[in-house]
Amino acid sequence: MKNNEMNSGRRKFIKTAAIGAGAAAASVAAPAIARNRRTTWRMVTTWPRNFPGLGVGAQRLADRITAMSGGELTVRVYSAGELVPPLQSFDAVIEGSAEMSHGAAYYWQNKSPATSFFTGVPYGMTSRELSAWIRFMGGQEIWDKVYDQFGVKGFLSGDTGTQAGGWFRQEIKSLDDIQGINFRTPGLGGQVWSRMGANVTNMAAGEIYQALQSGALDAAEFVGPYNDLALGFHQICKEYYLPSFIEPGLATELVVNKSKFSALPEHLQKVVEIACQAEYDQVASDFYANDPIALRTLVEDHGVNLRTFPEDLLEAGAKASMDIVNELREHRDALTRETAESFVKSFNLLRTRTELVDQKFGLAREKYIKYS
Amino acid sequence: MKNNEMNSGRRKFIKTAAIGAGAAAASVAAPAIARNRRTTWRMVTTWPRNFPGLGVGAQRLADRITAMSGGELTVRVYSAGELVPPLQSFDAVIEGSAEMSHGAAYYWQNKSPATSFFTGVPYGMTSRELSAWIRFMGGQEIWDKVYDQFGVKGFLSGDTGTQAGGWFRQEIKSLDDIQGINFRTPGLGGQVWSRMGANVTNMAAGEIYQALQSGALDAAEFVGPYNDLALGFHQICKEYYLPSFIEPGLATELVVNKSKFSALPEHLQKVVEIACQAEYDQVASDFYANDPIALRTLVEDHGVNLRTFPEDLLEAGAKASMDIVNELREHRDALTRETAESFVKSFNLLRTRTELVDQKFGLAREKYIKYS
Repeated sequence: MKNNEMNSGRRKFIKTAAIGAGAAAASVAAPAIARNRRTTWRMVTTWPRNFPGLGVGAQRLADRITAMSGGELTVRVYSAGELVPPLQSFDAVIEGSAEMSHGAAYYWQNKSPATSFFTGVPYGMTSRELSAWIRFMGGQEIWDKVYDQFGVKGFLSGDTGTQAGGWFRQEIKSLDDIQGINFRTPGLGGQVWSRMGANVTNMAAGEIYQALQSGALDAAEFVGPYNDLALGFHQICKEYYLPSFIEPGLATELVVNKSKFSALPEHLQKVVEIACQAEYDQVASDFYANDPIALRTLVEDHGVNLRTFPEDLLEAGAKASMDIVNELREHRDALTRETAESFVKSFNLLRTRTELVDQKFGLAREKYIKYS
Repeated sequence: MKNNEMNSGRRKFIKTAAIGAGAAAASVAAPAIARNRRTTWRMVTTWPRNFPGLGVGAQRLADRITAMSGGELTVRVYSAGELVPPLQSFDAVIEGSAEMSHGAAYYWQNKSPATSFFTGVPYGMTSRELSAWIRFMGGQEIWDKVYDQFGVKGFLSGDTGTQAGGWFRQEIKSLDDIQGINFRTPGLGGQVWSRMGANVTNMAAGEIYQALQSGALDAAEFVGPYNDLALGFHQICKEYYLPSFIEPGLATELVVNKSKFSALPEHLQKVVEIACQAEYDQVASDFYANDPIALRTLVEDHGVNLRTFPEDLLEAGAKASMDIVNELREHRDALTRETAESFVKSFNLLRTRTELVDQKFGLAREKYIKYS
């Protein structure tokens, strides 16, 4: 479904509804039927407008809520910086200057370290495992407790799938080759690389290209082929490492002001909740469809070399990742401990299916199936 | 979200709405506002009531449509046999004795062999690859053309993920061991096993247990641990093979009568479409969460042995699967050829991401990560 179809649908309905309301007004006093009251909500986002996969997903989610409610709940999107700076969007929902925020939970680690688990942690759950934990293994209930502290509620609203490992100027042949390099990577993944010996910095998407060009950065990771191609990193670095081990998935969230959400009629609460779940699938499908197309372009048109990280680096990354998660299991904040424990317990169970079923099927298919 | 919460939500809304309508009626003549007209639709299904994952998913989808529309579109579910026999549910929608059917597209192979591709084919797409093809690579458009022939429209409405390979009385050490055995497995997967040398039969879920017990069947595959545990096959067979190579995913569908769907107000069309997409994620999450729990029970409490198929069998299965798909690419029916071609073209692209990213991440995680 395209946004313009959705908008055209909405305009059409609004027109019809207006005629209906006019007809009613002509014969009777305006009837007080709660369902037809219009509400407009502001959705701030951490993404640039039209940012592939993620910014587009925020806009589509807003359009879908508006369309399903027939305009009863109309959602207007403000991209990064339009209403508030991107990293103030969570606070904007707490304070009420926006009703909704579209971003990633791990941006709010300074409020609670538990938030990382609702986005994805190094060497942690894939997108499908994450949704199983959130929806059927107690994840949402713990997330609700974490966000209750701030008077908001979070819903999964998208996922990139497993990301790319990053762009490097030179081939990485062992763990030695990343010692002291200036590498752009944020969040817990950045902590992992830092413990492995890299000199980790974070910077906004728009600054990475120039920092690579000037030599301020030796390497950078961002999302994956679909986003990376658009940012042009391949013009400077030719060694592209797949997959990431620090971002096995990156789930986006919709954050809603809890008291405003509770005040919505029940059918509109369901519209918001179910629209988010549909977007979780839609955004992931977008990345799964468009990543391999972008990857083909990078290799065939731009001479990019696809590489995998060497084993000693994968192993050191795993050790650092486990250390970080185990430290969160013993964090002084009780809810962070509870979140980490629930995550690890579910992870230990979910991985058995992934390893016994999904992985083994994938390997057999990779080995034996070939279509011209 | 539990069904009873949903029902309670709906009842609450209906009660509120009734009070609103009564208040309006007391002061004015009943206003003719199209949005508040109630429509009740019948959803027939191919599943038994409360069938884990799938029958439960059909009921939840109906409840979600009803809840999001605030009762404007109320969907009543008829389980297998309640209104029509399960395998007549597609015809029921064509003929108009039901507005919707919840089942699997490959049940309608006798109407068009193209339908298999919208459920899953042997050694074909996983659930995430399938949704990428359907939503972003032209799959839905081709599906619409196939179903236009029958005056209906299909939506993905769930997925089991990669299934189990089946229950065997004895260990399978090579392709020789399955020659001539009586094996229950339906659809294109059955054709694959038949070409490999098994004596394939199909029978309804409820008949399998007794056929295994009497010796009429040597082996059977059904879905996966979550469903299989409930049916008790482990009481007779102890050798459980994972994964299936013939069912890398099984997508369920919602089929809607096209002219009735087109006559719905646009916001209700969106409610149906987006509810189906949310269920695609919800059903898959249900299986991912509950399969490993059931698998643990099978192994720890019932002494089931987990096995993988031997390499010569995996290879022979791959050859038979490719032959069957390649035959469909040359089928006499033009739409079947077009469907098969689009599927294979998208598959060849999608697998590059799966193999370079998802598979490699999974293997590294399997090797290096261990949490107590």
